Amino acid sequence: MQKITILIHCKDQKGIIAAVTTFIAKVEGNITYIDQHVDVEQNVFFMRLECELTNHHITIDNLKSDFDKTIATDFDMSWDLYNQEQKPKMALFVSKYDHCLFDILGRYSAGELNVEIPVIISNHNDLRSIAERFDIPFHCVPFTKDNKEEGEAKQIELLQRYQINFIVLARYMQIITPNLIALYENKIINIHHSFLPAFPGAKPYHSAFKRGVKIIGATSHYVTAELDEGPIIEQDIARVSHIHSVDDFIMKGRDLERIVLARAIKLHAERKTMVYSNKTVVFS
Amino acid sequence: MQKITILIHCKDQKGIIAAVTTFIAKVEGNITYIDQHVDVEQNVFFMRLECELTNHHITIDNLKSDFDKTIATDFDMSWDLYNQEQKPKMALFVSKYDHCLFDILGRYSAGELNVEIPVIISNHNDLRSIAERFDIPFHCVPFTKDNKEEGEAKQIELLQRYQINFIVLARYMQIITPNLIALYENKIINIHHSFLPAFPGAKPYHSAFKRGVKIIGATSHYVTAELDEGPIIEQDIARVSHIHSVDDFIMKGRDLERIVLARAIKLHAERKTMVYSNKTVVFS
Amino acid sequence: MQKITILIHCKDQKGIIAAVTTFIAKVEGNITYIDQHVDVEQNVFFMRLECELTNHHITIDNLKSDFDKTIATDFDMSWDLYNQEQKPKMALFVSKYDHCLFDILGRYSAGELNVEIPVIISNHNDLRSIAERFDIPFHCVPFTKDNKEEGEAKQIELLQRYQINFIVLARYMQIITPNLIALYENKIINIHHSFLPAFPGAKPYHSAFKRGVKIIGATSHYVTAELDEGPIIEQDIARVSHIHSVDDFIMKGRDLERIVLARAIKLHAERKTMVYSNKTVVFS
Amino acid sequence: MQKITILIHCKDQKGIIAAVTTFIAKVEGNITYIDQHVDVEQNVFFMRLECELTNHHITIDNLKSDFDKTIATDFDMSWDLYNQEQKPKMALFVSKYDHCLFDILGRYSAGELNVEIPVIISNHNDLRSIAERFDIPFHCVPFTKDNKEEGEAKQIELLQRYQINFIVLARYMQIITPNLIALYENKIINIHHSFLPAFPGAKPYHSAFKRGVKIIGATSHYVTAELDEGPIIEQDIARVSHIHSVDDFIMKGRDLERIVLARAIKLHAERKTMVYSNKTVVFS
Repeated sequence: MQKITILIHCKDQKGIIAAVTTFIAKVEGNITYIDQHVDVEQNVFFMRLECELTNHHITIDNLKSDFDKTIATDFDMSWDLYNQEQKPKMALFVSKYDHCLFDILGRYSAGELNVEIPVIISNHNDLRSIAERFDIPFHCVPFTKDNKEEGEAKQIELLQRYQINFIVLARYMQIITPNLIALYENKIINIHHSFLPAFPGAKPYHSAFKRGVKIIGATSHYVTAELDEGPIIEQDIARVSHIHSVDDFIMKGRDLERIVLARAIKLHAERKTMVYSNKTVVFS
Repeated sequence: MQKITILIHCKDQKGIIAAVTTFIAKVEGNITYIDQHVDVEQNVFFMRLECELTNHHITIDNLKSDFDKTIATDFDMSWDLYNQEQKPKMALFVSKYDHCLFDILGRYSAGELNVEIPVIISNHNDLRSIAERFDIPFHCVPFTKDNKEEGEAKQIELLQRYQINFIVLARYMQIITPNLIALYENKIINIHHSFLPAFPGAKPYHSAFKRGVKIIGATSHYVTAELDEGPIIEQDIARVSHIHSVDDFIMKGRDLERIVLARAIKLHAERKTMVYSNKTVVFS
Repeated sequence: MQKITILIHCKDQKGIIAAVTTFIAKVEGNITYIDQHVDVEQNVFFMRLECELTNHHITIDNLKSDFDKTIATDFDMSWDLYNQEQKPKMALFVSKYDHCLFDILGRYSAGELNVEIPVIISNHNDLRSIAERFDIPFHCVPFTKDNKEEGEAKQIELLQRYQINFIVLARYMQIITPNLIALYENKIINIHHSFLPAFPGAKPYHSAFKRGVKIIGATSHYVTAELDEGPIIEQDIARVSHIHSVDDFIMKGRDLERIVLARAIKLHAERKTMVYSNKTVVFS
Repeated sequence: MQKITILIHCKDQKGIIAAVTTFIAKVEGNITYIDQHVDVEQNVFFMRLECELTNHHITIDNLKSDFDKTIATDFDMSWDLYNQEQKPKMALFVSKYDHCLFDILGRYSAGELNVEIPVIISNHNDLRSIAERFDIPFHCVPFTKDNKEEGEAKQIELLQRYQINFIVLARYMQIITPNLIALYENKIINIHHSFLPAFPGAKPYHSAFKRGVKIIGATSHYVTAELDEGPIIEQDIARVSHIHSVDDFIMKGRDLERIVLARAIKLHAERKTMVYSNKTVVFS
């Protein structure tokens, strides 16, 4: 029995749900999950559907082809159909901070993440030994002011070699170049250590401390050309008070960063996120 | 234009969603919200749907009748269909604590609650002046060991006189009698001042303090014959520490009680809750 | 038996705690609460102390005088000493939103707030009937572009007439004038409907919705000359998702605003806040 | 410069704080942190103090001896004095679940925990390879109904060989024997996967699911002879709803377990916890 996930978005119109669910019924699919959302302002319809295909004569390729010719055309849909058994391939980008890396590799080893991690790429060599401890290939691609093009080319070559589907910046301390962003649109996940849009850019814990906030946060988002302005996937917060120093903020923040990044990875890997108007629809 | 809400539950079967959404399309209804849930263990399907009726020739009564004869019969559904303009009538039961009463009446006066409150019933006279301040009829129905039947009869008479649809126990300190529970099945909402199932019964803050918990909570639930065992609608918590006394627990708990009860009232009044197997499905 | 609260801040030095606690022991005071904080960066010491005076021959005035001449002089302290029985007098400023007003007056009537509320001042007449319902004098002081000086003068006259100690802006939609801020330095509490410093200024819920945040917040702070830049007293947040409209944000935010403002009022009224470097020390 | 931490508890009496802070001043100590708590009900005083010893002629042993003879005797104190440079030695007990183990070892490797981990002890061999990956000795001490005494003896022998100061049960699925509990009183930390006292014992997520709670939790506590009844160190919660299956509860719970156990380890390792009346005082 095959299990598939379908993601759809299109202009909101009457009868979409009826049409899609009728289509699934016809191909003898058993819907195990369905959720939909209408952005009333923008008049856009979103749907996420999981189903089991009980008829062995229907292949996923047939299904895609049928869906494309009928429903998808009728409603002018943007859509994706995934075989749930195919785990997406995820590249990890890191620099010197190791806490998110340890957390992701621990979860990966414990079988919590529905991904494959074929490669870790870094602009420094500091974390190589961690990658080796978890038996994952590690490539150092240094970045300086003068070698940006070369560095980007090397990154892209590695991503293609390892057939990477999406990228996770686990406290990667280097701006992602425009070509790479274009190549992986809505497929690069960053963790920023503040509750955006508060404290974008560098040293957010220091800024938060200076402002005297009572709450700190972390934000995972898709990377776009505008720094820290991409669609937010997940956020969480922790309470702080006058007794906490900047170092306490940083230490408390590590837990936030771990959790908020891990949640975003899971949501993306399980195809639960859709992006529209620089926002996410997160089916959870 | 009429707006309606439909709640459905039935045995899970293929094609329900397709059938319902096709039905709505046929009567020229515009679905503005739809959500569904399948309890896989129990094999039960739940759906909540909001739609606008754009065809003025179709009355709600016609619709009900059509729905009943076709879809509802085909799938052997339990269902309700509400006109969104008809606010449910809610009775408030109180005793001596005033904080939930003030909170509910404040929200009511501010237009936050989609209800009418035609009557406040209490087993004491202490809060009469608050009811008067908000111009709501107040009836004192004392309860003693010896007059339970009489008290219950008086309560039921009042509830019928005021055509009450559901009851909210805003820190009402008296056991609800079985006949009343039977009459208002899944329509009596209580607020219990602990995160159930921890600390059921009397004096939960004292028990929580004694146990040295680091978190206190509050729980709103539908009242059943088993004390504090009914279907949970909403819960929330607050952090406490060794510096807090029992009185601090009680004071912090007041905010929890207010919020958790108010959320339950809103959910129930907007027909977002369904009860099954002593649990709630909450469409939010 | 008299109960007092002492607040102290001064340059951090060795022996302060020993000196203060020895002083209290000498006057036969029984310390029931003591907390202190050192801002290491700024080298400032803060202390909050509650004690019971068991010797009836020692008046609060004597104590103040003694403290001033000895410890306070030795350590060059800024300090305040309060008789716990004297409730601070709080003025409420409102405009048209009623939810915070209902919440505060409900808490006030329920005896939760250690304050007196002798007056409500508004730039509109809309909420007059609520004030009357709670038997609190209501004064309308309209503000237009042309009458700012006159309006400010009238406000100050009222604040003096009612001997107001601190001011709470319960969604007061009018900029506070510089003279009033100067007169009530660190004694005007505002509630802003975002987790500052995100979304300062007007329409924060709309901005939050547009940005696609997954968390909204509210912030209570002391008012300074810089709009929404004053020392933060308390913040809290609520989760939102793609299913929530701007109106949902606003509705969820009402609960945040109520709670966060009420907590700030309690902290201030119980003399648990101190301000330094545009931040608060909150002894809780 | 040496840094020390002092923990004190004794009967509450006038003048303790003055005496202790005066003592520190005399030995030229610079207090960098001080916090105290009075359990009014039980009339017990608790204090935690950190200070820097600036006088090189005063050794920690001298200090201990002086303190013991003077203050500690005067006030009949229970007390401990720690050199902050001496990291406590922590043994990890595990069984088959790996998520807490990965989390702790990741944090340990990242330098977040102020401990040494000289040994991992398990009743199964499943997690041996993880221990090896992090270069930590792993000992399998099987437990069956018939070998409990032998197993306990082997555990105690290992704990002594590695000079273990405290034990962390990272989802160790075996009851700790009374002799071991007696040997490490208030020094064995367990993580239980519910917000105790709700759902003690086995399969708490299943019980929580069955009860239909809207919040799940995790609790770290010191192990006592009564199962899941020991002093609570830390708790946290996560929201769940009708859409979550038992497996979802378990998956969400893993993050709670990780975080709540890690916080307890940090608090214990930094000597921020004190136990009294089956409760903890947590200085944070």
